[in-house]
Amino acid sequence: MAGNSFGQSFRITTFGESHGKALGAVIDGCPSGIPLEAADFVKAMERRRPGKSSFETPRSEEDRVEILSGVFGGHTTGTPLALLVANRDVKSKPYGVLKDLFRPGHADYTYFKKFGHLDYRGGGRASARETAARVACGVVARKVLAPLGISILGHTLEVGGIRAAFMDPTAVDQNPLYCADAEAAERMLAALDQAGKEGDSLGGVVEVLVMGCPAGLGEPVFDKLDAELAKAIMSVGAVKGVEVGAGFEAARMRGSENNDPITSAGFSSNRSGGILGGISNGDDLVLRAAVKPIPSIMKPQKTVDREGHDAVLELTGRFDVTAVSRIVPVLEAMVSIVLADHYLRAKAVGQVFGV
Amino acid sequence: MAGNSFGQSFRITTFGESHGKALGAVIDGCPSGIPLEAADFVKAMERRRPGKSSFETPRSEEDRVEILSGVFGGHTTGTPLALLVANRDVKSKPYGVLKDLFRPGHADYTYFKKFGHLDYRGGGRASARETAARVACGVVARKVLAPLGISILGHTLEVGGIRAAFMDPTAVDQNPLYCADAEAAERMLAALDQAGKEGDSLGGVVEVLVMGCPAGLGEPVFDKLDAELAKAIMSVGAVKGVEVGAGFEAARMRGSENNDPITSAGFSSNRSGGILGGISNGDDLVLRAAVKPIPSIMKPQKTVDREGHDAVLELTGRFDVTAVSRIVPVLEAMVSIVLADHYLRAKAVGQVFGV
Amino acid sequence: MAGNSFGQSFRITTFGESHGKALGAVIDGCPSGIPLEAADFVKAMERRRPGKSSFETPRSEEDRVEILSGVFGGHTTGTPLALLVANRDVKSKPYGVLKDLFRPGHADYTYFKKFGHLDYRGGGRASARETAARVACGVVARKVLAPLGISILGHTLEVGGIRAAFMDPTAVDQNPLYCADAEAAERMLAALDQAGKEGDSLGGVVEVLVMGCPAGLGEPVFDKLDAELAKAIMSVGAVKGVEVGAGFEAARMRGSENNDPITSAGFSSNRSGGILGGISNGDDLVLRAAVKPIPSIMKPQKTVDREGHDAVLELTGRFDVTAVSRIVPVLEAMVSIVLADHYLRAKAVGQVFGV
Amino acid sequence: MAGNSFGQSFRITTFGESHGKALGAVIDGCPSGIPLEAADFVKAMERRRPGKSSFETPRSEEDRVEILSGVFGGHTTGTPLALLVANRDVKSKPYGVLKDLFRPGHADYTYFKKFGHLDYRGGGRASARETAARVACGVVARKVLAPLGISILGHTLEVGGIRAAFMDPTAVDQNPLYCADAEAAERMLAALDQAGKEGDSLGGVVEVLVMGCPAGLGEPVFDKLDAELAKAIMSVGAVKGVEVGAGFEAARMRGSENNDPITSAGFSSNRSGGILGGISNGDDLVLRAAVKPIPSIMKPQKTVDREGHDAVLELTGRFDVTAVSRIVPVLEAMVSIVLADHYLRAKAVGQVFGV
Repeated sequence: MAGNSFGQSFRITTFGESHGKALGAVIDGCPSGIPLEAADFVKAMERRRPGKSSFETPRSEEDRVEILSGVFGGHTTGTPLALLVANRDVKSKPYGVLKDLFRPGHADYTYFKKFGHLDYRGGGRASARETAARVACGVVARKVLAPLGISILGHTLEVGGIRAAFMDPTAVDQNPLYCADAEAAERMLAALDQAGKEGDSLGGVVEVLVMGCPAGLGEPVFDKLDAELAKAIMSVGAVKGVEVGAGFEAARMRGSENNDPITSAGFSSNRSGGILGGISNGDDLVLRAAVKPIPSIMKPQKTVDREGHDAVLELTGRFDVTAVSRIVPVLEAMVSIVLADHYLRAKAVGQVFGV
Repeated sequence: MAGNSFGQSFRITTFGESHGKALGAVIDGCPSGIPLEAADFVKAMERRRPGKSSFETPRSEEDRVEILSGVFGGHTTGTPLALLVANRDVKSKPYGVLKDLFRPGHADYTYFKKFGHLDYRGGGRASARETAARVACGVVARKVLAPLGISILGHTLEVGGIRAAFMDPTAVDQNPLYCADAEAAERMLAALDQAGKEGDSLGGVVEVLVMGCPAGLGEPVFDKLDAELAKAIMSVGAVKGVEVGAGFEAARMRGSENNDPITSAGFSSNRSGGILGGISNGDDLVLRAAVKPIPSIMKPQKTVDREGHDAVLELTGRFDVTAVSRIVPVLEAMVSIVLADHYLRAKAVGQVFGV
Repeated sequence: MAGNSFGQSFRITTFGESHGKALGAVIDGCPSGIPLEAADFVKAMERRRPGKSSFETPRSEEDRVEILSGVFGGHTTGTPLALLVANRDVKSKPYGVLKDLFRPGHADYTYFKKFGHLDYRGGGRASARETAARVACGVVARKVLAPLGISILGHTLEVGGIRAAFMDPTAVDQNPLYCADAEAAERMLAALDQAGKEGDSLGGVVEVLVMGCPAGLGEPVFDKLDAELAKAIMSVGAVKGVEVGAGFEAARMRGSENNDPITSAGFSSNRSGGILGGISNGDDLVLRAAVKPIPSIMKPQKTVDREGHDAVLELTGRFDVTAVSRIVPVLEAMVSIVLADHYLRAKAVGQVFGV
Repeated sequence: MAGNSFGQSFRITTFGESHGKALGAVIDGCPSGIPLEAADFVKAMERRRPGKSSFETPRSEEDRVEILSGVFGGHTTGTPLALLVANRDVKSKPYGVLKDLFRPGHADYTYFKKFGHLDYRGGGRASARETAARVACGVVARKVLAPLGISILGHTLEVGGIRAAFMDPTAVDQNPLYCADAEAAERMLAALDQAGKEGDSLGGVVEVLVMGCPAGLGEPVFDKLDAELAKAIMSVGAVKGVEVGAGFEAARMRGSENNDPITSAGFSSNRSGGILGGISNGDDLVLRAAVKPIPSIMKPQKTVDREGHDAVLELTGRFDVTAVSRIVPVLEAMVSIVLADHYLRAKAVGQVFGV
């Protein structure tokens, strides 16, 4: 398999390039009887849609999800859900320089090496646009998870070295960065503004919390819940690191500091990030992703052409200054998809959740 | 699937508990004609075997790998390799306290919640002993990768907050921590000695380098090379974080700092860790794992019993003070397995490597 | 997984219901660099399209395949191919009786039992229309197989008990039944005419030959080539039996009769159907499928309603009299898909074909 | 994957060659809490064990199943079950002729072509001995299916053209052929005796019935219950044809004859074999397999050597005269495995069976 599917029991397969006719996904394994209509996708797609803020270039994509199959009478039928997102904003702008030069930090070079030729139109399959299909699948995954009553919340923890000092869930949707610390968000936006003026870009850290996650999700050994989440998160372009709970800080603690005491009222700390031995322990899941700065910048960069000759790349136009905020809903989606898959896998062997 | 298999084309399935009769693995998809005999496993198994150093408890396990099938006339036949490691050092020591109380930081609690009962003998399937089967599979994976001429080297980068200052490959096998900085290793060992005396444990950071990795390994979207490596690494017990290349540092860089310039002589830096768009770019792979401190400590800890009543756990006996060094060969094995799998997957679609 | 994917290395996932917006498929694992355009699908889709003959009801479906992704510059890119076939001939005819009664011999009853509700519009996902997506995938599979230079030919061996006496490949496309015996085809058509007049339907037998199939395709034990072909063939609605080579006749032979002698010039007979031990032996593959008569007939039939009460079903309108001819291209497609998958799987482990 | 695994949710992986150290299986996905001990395997293994009758050569294999992992306190733990069957009767008899010549009708030729070399010791991985692992897995599958209260019964329908006239379940275990018609069994045994004296072998037909099978097992499209059963059955060596219900007879019926009327008391006939649209309909499953005659015969046969030169093969020693009876328990096992897998898959999406 060439890697465009994810999940075992709740299995998504995505397709589409940034400048092709459409992108979309097929979901196999969705239980029947779940209410689902096109309107259910609007909010999540809008949340991911780029071009809404000063640090992003304006785009006219509407990103409307069309349900091609798998729903009848307003409910899922148990057959595959095919979800389609048409590409409307595909401009016929000249690709000249991209036809010849590899962009540093992008997938141009490696795709060309791997496949022998390159869809140079806006990143092709490697474009961040591909994540629109993931977000659509995430909407369905959340519906599958509805019986568990969990809440999945992503937020921007850090941009350009500026870190949120606290986590106020109500603040997240009040700023374009999905940052839970309104004051820090202001400083992040200022830093983005400055970096953009300098033709540069910034990275950051995204955190995803899963509140109300029941114990017992995840499988031993290879398909540990944290292993699957790490894959899901690292599979999002621009992510270069993943942490669960205390993460790299755990490496500097002693066992007596890092162990979460267990009490009759639950765990009295959550350095584990809600996962022990690869299986959720009933505490909140805590996941973090390191997001690198967007590689498309306005400064001249050394690169090579298709034949390997030295060249200088000078991009023109406008580019987003950070991908961090856009990755927030994508990571929420990926976490939802992993959980939905493991929820169904657990049900297969008779695990019972909730009341 | 319950999660005990890994890989698509080079697929391993492991089995066995720490105190059962044996543990082992079945490898499906290994090409035919590869020279293989039991002696090939000795060095790697010895490298992983615990109990060799002052910071580990002595054990008499020999960890000899027996090849049950898949080899004839000294070569692989293309049929499944079954590898068996007998459990010889299974003492009938009393498990009293473990039958009743969950050990904080271990998988006891979550396995019990998930499966409804618990193999309380030394961790059962969740024991670090399970990694012996992974190391055995890694030996075969390296043989599959032989045509690529790559070199996979793990080393201890950090223990208890003490970090190696440089990377000297020749030093790695000269100290029991597999640390590439001999002087730092001395300080790490002293810290371990001190922690052990205090009945506590330490964590650290392991790095794995893949030198000579060709461009073109990894698949788009979900089965990106870094995503699969992240899963493989995070699937090892005690790992709480994974980084590729600059990792979390990339989140604090600007695009102009983080992008690796491309020149006719290759990439002039390697902040990407050798992977762009999920596909290897021909540079060295650089991967890091955060390893938490071993949760078994000699200090009293709050916990609950099977019925959820508050209790205090006081472990007796001796325990390893860190898992970091033992994880080095396990991560080497997991990286090898991921690369072998992607090498075969790439060959399926006609990719050609090397001359 | 809910069963809408097929194949490991060349993996297809289909979606869509007979009366939904569209049906289609995603192909993951197709090698890059293969010439592909929408026009490539026309002939195969036309060959499968129903409504062309006297024994079929006229339909206005055009069954044009649209390529949504995976092709750039007229060649496959190595990313997923999304193929779409719009449903244009979806009449708003009244489904009254089908909303209440289960049709004997159809999947209505079992889908309702399994999923708890039913897409009663023309069979939904269980409709023969689903096979349009398979035929589209078969076109791509044949392109993947091009380097092998094989020829895959299906033909109608039997209809209503009338059997072709010989196999003349040039006759196959000269009659609407794809029968290789022109004279037998005449009699089959007469029988269909008569059955249709009586409001009844006929079954038959389809044979698929793979000429020039190289030795070495198929895997030991479970994924034997014949096992995978049997699954692929039996997965086509209306198929109730599968034979390889001598098939059920082999059960009545002696070993001395059934064994194919091997000579320096090749096998001197082909009772094995080109497969030994689950692996192709270099001789032609010979496969046969028993196709049941179409269950939709004009005669009153006993059935029950949704509540299980006895009822009589009287279908009105017109129905096809046999599915045999339409299954010919579908089985060709399925055989192509199995072979393409096993070809890529064999390449993964270094098997070399041709030269 | 190289094809040694079967199933999605209840997934078995087998290994081992006929003359290697051992063969066995790993089962992943077995629910926890199922009572299981080594004694549970004895009856099924004995039922499959060859060498018990006049038409089989005597063998001293005991075929004892050892449970290496996955059971604690007499119950499955939810971790992988590793089952081992040692090879005890591996004689060092001379393989001379088999080292040089391919046996017609066997897998020697194709394995050599595929893998480049050959384990010539008694068939290696292609040996019927491999089915011992399947039977062991079938025992576990039946335990998984216990809540459904179904009964799976295989019997010999035909040997050498002699067909059982009726199906008396009580007769099945009363004769070494597992034939449900005691009188026909006598004639079959006489035919086997005669064929054996002539140095020849006979084939036959095996039928498997699943009584009490609930409606709702099987998935749409590719993983139809009959498609998966067809693969499972055809994956057993020597099987050349598979039928469900009326099978090839259905091809000769009219729709009005073949459709099973539905009544408030259930289906009033079972030509469908209990499966409609790939999903079980609540009626008994009826499956048949065509078994070819054993290719090892005492008569001289034309063949070639490793270099392709013409030769004559003359086997010495004694051989079984038919494989039919031994395949009965193997097919029961394969049917059990398919049903257990689909039972767990159905549970994943919330299907409820029974009361």
